[in-house]
Amino acid sequence: VGVLKAVILSINPEAAIFDISHDVSAQGVEEGAFVLAQAIPYLPRGATCIAVVDPGVGTARRGIALRTPLATFVGPDNGLLSAALDPRGPGGAEPGVAATMPLPKGCEAVELLNSEYLLRPVSNTFHGRDIFAPVGAHLSLGRPLSSFGPAVHSLDAFPPWRARRRDDGTLVGRVIVVDGFGNLITDVRGEDLPGGRILIRVAGREFEGLQRTFQDGPEFAVYIGSSGFLEIGRRNASAAAALDLDAGASLQVLAVR
Amino acid sequence: VGVLKAVILSINPEAAIFDISHDVSAQGVEEGAFVLAQAIPYLPRGATCIAVVDPGVGTARRGIALRTPLATFVGPDNGLLSAALDPRGPGGAEPGVAATMPLPKGCEAVELLNSEYLLRPVSNTFHGRDIFAPVGAHLSLGRPLSSFGPAVHSLDAFPPWRARRRDDGTLVGRVIVVDGFGNLITDVRGEDLPGGRILIRVAGREFEGLQRTFQDGPEFAVYIGSSGFLEIGRRNASAAAALDLDAGASLQVLAVR
Amino acid sequence: VGVLKAVILSINPEAAIFDISHDVSAQGVEEGAFVLAQAIPYLPRGATCIAVVDPGVGTARRGIALRTPLATFVGPDNGLLSAALDPRGPGGAEPGVAATMPLPKGCEAVELLNSEYLLRPVSNTFHGRDIFAPVGAHLSLGRPLSSFGPAVHSLDAFPPWRARRRDDGTLVGRVIVVDGFGNLITDVRGEDLPGGRILIRVAGREFEGLQRTFQDGPEFAVYIGSSGFLEIGRRNASAAAALDLDAGASLQVLAVR
Repeated sequence: VGVLKAVILSINPEAAIFDISHDVSAQGVEEGAFVLAQAIPYLPRGATCIAVVDPGVGTARRGIALRTPLATFVGPDNGLLSAALDPRGPGGAEPGVAATMPLPKGCEAVELLNSEYLLRPVSNTFHGRDIFAPVGAHLSLGRPLSSFGPAVHSLDAFPPWRARRRDDGTLVGRVIVVDGFGNLITDVRGEDLPGGRILIRVAGREFEGLQRTFQDGPEFAVYIGSSGFLEIGRRNASAAAALDLDAGASLQVLAVR
Repeated sequence: VGVLKAVILSINPEAAIFDISHDVSAQGVEEGAFVLAQAIPYLPRGATCIAVVDPGVGTARRGIALRTPLATFVGPDNGLLSAALDPRGPGGAEPGVAATMPLPKGCEAVELLNSEYLLRPVSNTFHGRDIFAPVGAHLSLGRPLSSFGPAVHSLDAFPPWRARRRDDGTLVGRVIVVDGFGNLITDVRGEDLPGGRILIRVAGREFEGLQRTFQDGPEFAVYIGSSGFLEIGRRNASAAAALDLDAGASLQVLAVR
Repeated sequence: VGVLKAVILSINPEAAIFDISHDVSAQGVEEGAFVLAQAIPYLPRGATCIAVVDPGVGTARRGIALRTPLATFVGPDNGLLSAALDPRGPGGAEPGVAATMPLPKGCEAVELLNSEYLLRPVSNTFHGRDIFAPVGAHLSLGRPLSSFGPAVHSLDAFPPWRARRRDDGTLVGRVIVVDGFGNLITDVRGEDLPGGRILIRVAGREFEGLQRTFQDGPEFAVYIGSSGFLEIGRRNASAAAALDLDAGASLQVLAVR
C-alpha cells in the first residue's frame, strides 16, 4: 500500500490520499465491492478511487477506469467496481457471482491498455503498483479517461445485495461482510423486512425482534445497521466468533405469526 | 475509518488528516483515553481531534466537542475525552470507571445537538460518520464551538492514572494498555516509585530492579516507558503473551528491604 | 505511529506524509530493510523517509540521517538503512547479520547528536518520537544534513539478498519476508535461476517448474514476484501457513536433469 502512495505522489505531489479500507479478506472481491459501496456516497465529489482486490492479477481479467457521476474508479474488472454502478441495476443472477452487465447511463469506462501511463515493466503480480496507481494519479491530474485506452461498454458486476423472498414470504439472505467488531452484515435490506415482529434463523439459532443498536440485545442484537442492511451483533463482543460464522453464511428472516 | 476521512475531506478539502491509533480494543474506552493522553502533548497546536471508542453509540450518552488550550476534541461523552482534561484533576473515585467531573478552567464544551452540521439521517450505530466527522471538519474550518449546540459544564472522566499507595507504602496498580509489542503499560508513575531497589509482583511472579529499556532484562524487563509510567516488557517478545496478562491486570510495587 | 505524525506536522505543517508499512515483525530489522528496499525505487525524488525497526533502542546503536541520490533516510544504524545503499555492495558476510560497511560514493550520513533538533527529554524507548520524527521533519524543511551532527563514514548493512550458489550449482536461499497474503519471498533472484526446468526443495517438500503468478499452480505456485525474487505462494490461501514456514526458513533450487 505504501508503494502505491509513493507512486501516486511521484506523479501528483498535490494528491490528498486517504485509505478506505485494508481489512477486506485477501480474496474477498464481493466483500470489497460491498465495503466500497458503503463508502461511495461519502466520497468527495470527483474523487479518484483506486480499488484493488484482485485474485485474478496476471490473468486475462481486464484493468479498467470507470467514471460515474460521483467519482472515478480504477481497478480490476472482476465485479469489485460493481459498487460504483447502480446497486439495484441488473447483473449476475447467482448470489456472490459477478457477471457481465452493460454500463448504466451516465457512466463511461475504458480498458487500461495504453502503456504510456503504466510503470514498466509491468509485473505479473503487482498491478496496483504498476497499473492502477499510476493511472489513478494521472486521472487525478485531470487527464481525460480516453487517454488510457479504448472504451468498454460492459463490466463484471455482482447482483444487487438483496435477500431473496420465497413464495411463503421468508427472506433468504447471506452474510456479506464481517466488520471489525465481529458484527455480521447481511444482504437483508431494512425496507424488505416483513411488518410486525420478525424471527431470524441463523447458525441453528433463532433471534426474535429487532433492536436499535448492537448494544441493545440481552446477548445478541439484531438491528438495521448504518448502511441500511440487517446486522447481527453482540454486546461488547464478536457475534461472528460466538456464532462461528463468516461471510457467505446464510440466514432466514420470517414474520412471527 | 475511510468513510470518516471521506466525510472530512468533502467538507474541508484542505484538511491534513492523520491517524493517532486504530489499535485500541473495541470496547476499551479507558485504554483509548490513555492512548490519546500520550499523544496530546505532541499534537500540532489548535488541531482538531476526532476520538471514537464508543460502545454506547445510539444510547443516551451525549456527543460533545471540547476545546482546551491545546486543541479541540470531538467524541462521545463516556470518559474517552478525559485525556484532554488535566490528568491530575478530579474524576471518578473507582479505578477504570468514568464519572462526571466539572470542566477545568480554560476548557469549554458543547453538546452536539445542532443537526445543521450532521449528516442526516443520523444512524443509530455510526456516529463517527454522521456526527463526529462532520462536526470535526466544520471545526477545522474555524466555525465557533457554540455553533454546534448548547454549552455543557461537566464531562465524564476517568480518575487520574496513578497507582494507589497503601499504608505500608506498597503501590497497587493496574495494567492500562498492552502496546503493539506486547509491553504492559501500567498506571504506576515513575515519580511515585519508592527509593532504592524495587520489587514488582505480577501474575504470581516477582521481578526485582529497574532496567533502562525493554531490551535490558535477562528475560523480562521492568522500566519507565516513554510516557513516564512503569512498563513490563520482554526482550524480543511479548510480555503480555508470556505472562498471559491483559489490560486491567493488577500489580504491586514494593521497596526491597 | 500517530504521535510521530503529530510531531512531524507540528514542525512542518505542509508535510505530505504517507506510510510505507507497519506490518514488519517487531524485531525484523532485515525484513524491514527488505520491505524498504522494494519501496525505494518508487519514492518521490527527494523524499524524507523515517524508518524505525529498532530492537536496540536505548542502547549504544547510533541514530543516523543518510542522504542518497534518491532520497534522505532517518533511522537507527542497525542495518535497516541497508536498503538505501546499493544492495549489491559489500556488507556482512553472514546471511541475516548486519556488519559495518563504508558509505558508497554519492551518499553522505551524519550521526544525530545535535540535541537542538530533538524533543527533550529524549526517552530511552521511543526514539521514533523524540529523535527520528523531529529530525525527519526538519530535513523535509530543507535544513542541511550537517546541522544534525558529525559526518559518519560507514554504516551497518546486511549482505546483499542473493542466494548462495554451491559448487554443484544448487542455489541455497532463505525466506526473507512473508507478505500479507502469506506468500514467501526469498532471496533467490530470478536472474540467478539455472536454465531449464527447476526444482525447489523447501520444508521437506518439492515443487517443480515456475509459474507466472501466485494463482497459477495446482496448489502451490513458485514464481518470480514483483520485486524480482523467487516467491512461493498458494492459490487463494497462505503458503506460509500451509508449509508452516516463517522468515529465515531455508530452501534449495536445483536444475532438473
